Amino acid sequence: MTIQAYGAHAGDKPLEAMSITRRTPGASDVLIDIAFCGVCHSDIHQVRAEWAGTLFPCVPGHEIVGRVSAVGGDVSGFKPGDLVGVGCIVDSCRECAECADGLENYCNHMVGTYNGRTADAPGHTLGGYSQQIVVDERYVLRIRHAEDQLAAVAPLLCAGITTWSPLRHWKVGPGKKVGVVGIGGLGHMGIKLAHALGTHVVAFTTSESKRDAARALGADEVVVSRNPDEMAAQAGSLDFILNTVAAPHDLDAFLALLKRDGTMTLVGAPATPHPSPQVFNLIMKRRSLAGSLIGGIPETQEMLDFCAEHGIVADIEMIRADEINAAYERMLNGDVKYRFVIDNASLAG
Amino acid sequence: MTIQAYGAHAGDKPLEAMSITRRTPGASDVLIDIAFCGVCHSDIHQVRAEWAGTLFPCVPGHEIVGRVSAVGGDVSGFKPGDLVGVGCIVDSCRECAECADGLENYCNHMVGTYNGRTADAPGHTLGGYSQQIVVDERYVLRIRHAEDQLAAVAPLLCAGITTWSPLRHWKVGPGKKVGVVGIGGLGHMGIKLAHALGTHVVAFTTSESKRDAARALGADEVVVSRNPDEMAAQAGSLDFILNTVAAPHDLDAFLALLKRDGTMTLVGAPATPHPSPQVFNLIMKRRSLAGSLIGGIPETQEMLDFCAEHGIVADIEMIRADEINAAYERMLNGDVKYRFVIDNASLAG
Repeated sequence: MTIQAYGAHAGDKPLEAMSITRRTPGASDVLIDIAFCGVCHSDIHQVRAEWAGTLFPCVPGHEIVGRVSAVGGDVSGFKPGDLVGVGCIVDSCRECAECADGLENYCNHMVGTYNGRTADAPGHTLGGYSQQIVVDERYVLRIRHAEDQLAAVAPLLCAGITTWSPLRHWKVGPGKKVGVVGIGGLGHMGIKLAHALGTHVVAFTTSESKRDAARALGADEVVVSRNPDEMAAQAGSLDFILNTVAAPHDLDAFLALLKRDGTMTLVGAPATPHPSPQVFNLIMKRRSLAGSLIGGIPETQEMLDFCAEHGIVADIEMIRADEINAAYERMLNGDVKYRFVIDNASLAG
Repeated sequence: MTIQAYGAHAGDKPLEAMSITRRTPGASDVLIDIAFCGVCHSDIHQVRAEWAGTLFPCVPGHEIVGRVSAVGGDVSGFKPGDLVGVGCIVDSCRECAECADGLENYCNHMVGTYNGRTADAPGHTLGGYSQQIVVDERYVLRIRHAEDQLAAVAPLLCAGITTWSPLRHWKVGPGKKVGVVGIGGLGHMGIKLAHALGTHVVAFTTSESKRDAARALGADEVVVSRNPDEMAAQAGSLDFILNTVAAPHDLDAFLALLKRDGTMTLVGAPATPHPSPQVFNLIMKRRSLAGSLIGGIPETQEMLDFCAEHGIVADIEMIRADEINAAYERMLNGDVKYRFVIDNASLAG
């Protein structure tokens, strides 16, 4: 099956239209007509070979939503016409403790939706900047939002689950005070989800200009982190901090805001290390610095269902596929509120 | 009350014999004749003014054991003749959430056994390198070991509780695999306690020569961390790591040995920062890097009772007070197995 896609042939080349093939759906596969695909910062890092090991041609995209067009004979959970999503994971070993626990994201053999090793041509997975995708039903998510919300659901498949999983794992809810650092693609979802979970949300931004926007997203308080007085007022008061900032920055400034036994969890990995955090800041209040990687398939479904029930979607700006290179430049300038989503109908050229 | 002590008048001066005063015991105070005092690395840092804020004269010592010689009228828990201990804490605010939770070690107004602000002359607390000490009974611990074990009990008051508290907080016990990094004053207690808690203990040392000693302390496995093959064999296998090394070192080498959701807790604070840990190592397995500071009064009593029941004491080398300067030099060379303890009878001219 040959389809249209948008990708790059080398790390220093812009993305362009290309033809790719998809495998013939097997017995447990779902064939999905992709309606929309969100644009994640990871897409840029990978397609530009800023991360090691990029395989070309590279077709990014792991915030995929669409409609089932066909299913294999063994598929029991989906039928043609269903609204579905695919996130960052399209396969895993299915046998390890992580897979057994529904945390396929931590499986050592997790196969990413793009740039993952596969038996399919060309030997690595190709992502959602494409017309169709074939995915084993184990890794397909059901979408219960209304169809007219579909484009804004797409970013939930990465930005949503990447923030949901740590918020749930560290038991964010009523009675807790939670910080969200950074108000971008991930952070804006972190604020929405933490607010919907009933917790007191403090948003941290370097931009005075984002103060009103953060409140509109659901923040109870907004702190401009460049202002020492505002930061000092939060010292020792937070139960949990979700830090979505991937650029190297001073972690101690935020660790000092945690209560005893508080945790700050990083969901972004900087290209160069953060300044080394002071051990003193961890020891004096038994604080933890942790990391979290996307989320597993069952909790992704839980998050999608929670969002459908609470009317939560991402704030998006729709683009055509041929606008992707310009969109990347705008993302690198922080000029998007808060996620670009490709209208995949624009691929039919 | 004027007594004999051993301390320093300045950071660049050796310790010497000196006279100090103790307050007249109040209604809730316990007067303790100090029998032995352990020698902690913190003593060196503080008395040499390597840590900020050393107040002189400085009399170190916070691993104190002895016998009650008098009690105030309101003291209900102790009577003359009782064997008791005093650790790192002699006062706290008694009102905050930390004090209410029995975690006085995290109270913002915790008063250290030496170098803490107090109304007593000379305005700061003076520690256990002295003949007697006066302590509010809230901060006095009962010792249930046999009297002939008393000297070897002293290090439990700091090295013991500093390792016990994180082992208990992070739920070390049967079925878990736990690493202890560093085999010194803290590490040797960490191995003994983790072993007694029924867990599988992997000791990490840089010294091939400590392999047998670590096994003798209770380690099930010993890894020489300079050997990449031995380290690789432990990758992703540990539930918890207690890291007792205060010198700056590569934390990633140990973080990579943790399972998903594993935690490495630091109990030593280096004078200069560790190399910055890779965020990747935290994110990929939802690992945590944490810190822990000594322990609270109730858990110190719990630890002492556990040790009495299990026959656990420190491995010590006894010294006279006037040997303290030479002992410091040997500690800095790692030449002690594993804790020096002062025989306080040697203070009597």
